[in-house]
Amino acid sequence: MRLAMGIEYDGGRYHGWQRQSHSDSVQERVERAISRVADGPVEVVCAGRTDRGVHATGQVIHFDVEVERPLYGWQMGTMQHLPRDITALWVREVDETFHARFSATAREYRYCLINRSTRPAIAAGRLSWWYRPLDEARMQAAADRLVGEHDFSSFRGKDCQAHSPVRTVERIEITRQGEYLFIDVRANAFLHHMVRNIVGSLFAVGSGERPVDWISEALAACQREAAGITAPADGLYLTGVEYPEPVGLPTQPRRPLFEQMG
Amino acid sequence: MRLAMGIEYDGGRYHGWQRQSHSDSVQERVERAISRVADGPVEVVCAGRTDRGVHATGQVIHFDVEVERPLYGWQMGTMQHLPRDITALWVREVDETFHARFSATAREYRYCLINRSTRPAIAAGRLSWWYRPLDEARMQAAADRLVGEHDFSSFRGKDCQAHSPVRTVERIEITRQGEYLFIDVRANAFLHHMVRNIVGSLFAVGSGERPVDWISEALAACQREAAGITAPADGLYLTGVEYPEPVGLPTQPRRPLFEQMG
Repeated sequence: MRLAMGIEYDGGRYHGWQRQSHSDSVQERVERAISRVADGPVEVVCAGRTDRGVHATGQVIHFDVEVERPLYGWQMGTMQHLPRDITALWVREVDETFHARFSATAREYRYCLINRSTRPAIAAGRLSWWYRPLDEARMQAAADRLVGEHDFSSFRGKDCQAHSPVRTVERIEITRQGEYLFIDVRANAFLHHMVRNIVGSLFAVGSGERPVDWISEALAACQREAAGITAPADGLYLTGVEYPEPVGLPTQPRRPLFEQMG
Repeated sequence: MRLAMGIEYDGGRYHGWQRQSHSDSVQERVERAISRVADGPVEVVCAGRTDRGVHATGQVIHFDVEVERPLYGWQMGTMQHLPRDITALWVREVDETFHARFSATAREYRYCLINRSTRPAIAAGRLSWWYRPLDEARMQAAADRLVGEHDFSSFRGKDCQAHSPVRTVERIEITRQGEYLFIDVRANAFLHHMVRNIVGSLFAVGSGERPVDWISEALAACQREAAGITAPADGLYLTGVEYPEPVGLPTQPRRPLFEQMG
């Protein structure tokens, strides 16, 4: 039987999603928890392998099990065996052709930042701090230049293992709520560091360091050096993964909000 | 010269506010940071000595310095020397008669909890999780019984060092936003564990385990055993401290919000 599960985690303590021999990963913690419920070793496949320090509110995994348990038992049992910064949000039975990564038709990330002179403390590690004023209208104008199917080599991390640098960005939406800025990016798939490199480039435009047109030039250059810095991991969340309708998984993105205290 | 400063911290890593010889405290971290800016040892006095694991968005301290620095320099310098889970929000010069603790006329705390079957991960440590359904109208009815000047011995922690168990609760307000529940408590001052013991007792009423009237009996008993459990520290925030108007400090409570993702 194949199961799909929704996972939320604070990536701050982990060396990313992917299992590694000498460091703590989200995948290893999740596999260990599910294996305890299954009473035997279980391997999982995720929709988006998040980097070190990156969070997820809408990660999706699949795994195969041979024992029978009520769905509620899979979710609650897994939840109980996970450390407190990882949780299991839901579980569904899926067809054996379902694949968390290959069946996904779109992914969405949210980048959360606070734009003020004073460093935040309560939200440290889960929100990026940018003290120079950012103009969100300029950032949106620049972001619009990236929408569509493009060669995103300029925004591709050097460790990227994808075969092709071509991706289709469906939407980039920038929202300001007081001192908080949210950048939602939706694409069919992402290259390594692609969201953080896009956000870092939007910072350059938003702070006035670069004109809006510069982002089009950066994109056209197909050279990593042409674009901006890699924004810090701490503000980044994988918020949702979309699958074809008939699969019946919860696909509504879960976008974290850090509202102004009031 | 006497300075007042607003402090925000995630108390999760600390053994409370108060400096202790063998464990890490918020006070020690703050004193160390200010001392570096002052180029000499500085001791600070706070408005509310929060317990182990309790957070603050509106802690107020005062301290005396002999060197001259621009106010902005005191704030930014302190902020830079603090660990990332503590920050300095503002600084003001105050009269030498000002005392962060004794001049305070009221304190406000917010208790934040999520009321659903699934444990949260991103907000772990900063939000309490209560999986049994809570009826906030019943909790509010019970809370109203505690407003006014009373002997709060039933809600007093055993290590409390206050001379008198009498306190004046000005207001308890319970707000539900979807799965989130916020309990704001305002009083002239608080006994040790008083907010957490009130919240634990409200849980008993909200879950239907106790009738609303029970809280009046618990209060009248003036016995700790008559009231409910001590709610976990992780959802508790010191959100604001009030001083007489002429002092001119920011007294608006900073109430953290954990809005439903959407």
